Amino acid sequence: MDYTQLTGLLAAVLTTGANIPQTIKVIKTRSTKSLSAATYAMLFLGMVMWVLYGVIRKDIPVILANSVAGSLCGIILFMKLLALYRKRRNPNSN
Amino acid sequence: MDYTQLTGLLAAVLTTGANIPQTIKVIKTRSTKSLSAATYAMLFLGMVMWVLYGVIRKDIPVILANSVAGSLCGIILFMKLLALYRKRRNPNSN
Repeated sequence: MDYTQLTGLLAAVLTTGANIPQTIKVIKTRSTKSLSAATYAMLFLGMVMWVLYGVIRKDIPVILANSVAGSLCGIILFMKLLALYRKRRNPNSN
Repeated sequence: MDYTQLTGLLAAVLTTGANIPQTIKVIKTRSTKSLSAATYAMLFLGMVMWVLYGVIRKDIPVILANSVAGSLCGIILFMKLLALYRKRRNPNSN
């Protein structure tokens, strides 16, 4: 593995793994107040598109990285939408 | 442009643009409570690595997408670190 591949691999691991602490934080604290629903909706949809793109191009790293990151963003999006729904039913809750 | 390129372009626009509403929300509300500092530190570092990877491979789309997204994540990270610093100096603040 040369330096270029190593740089790309490290970049992929960082940007994919970055979603882990946010997902843990949301599940632990149930706090999604500062999170943007639009951001996570776009990230989720975008990552589904990346997986599709990877499938068309038979690019395993693109499929893997975006499947993992997309699933984590999907969890965060779900928790955010759940909080928005609950807030709508009971405006005084968090 | 064929369907594959279109899928990739749409994916890139979505995952890059996704950072815009979160950045606007953080700047407007100054609320970073639910955001994970580790997530934004990893995203920022990862995107710097992606830019480096793009420069080595002379891949303009990779450079552009990650410069934009990386700058936005940098702003969010800065606001989060500022909030953590302020909280440390005054534990009763938000």
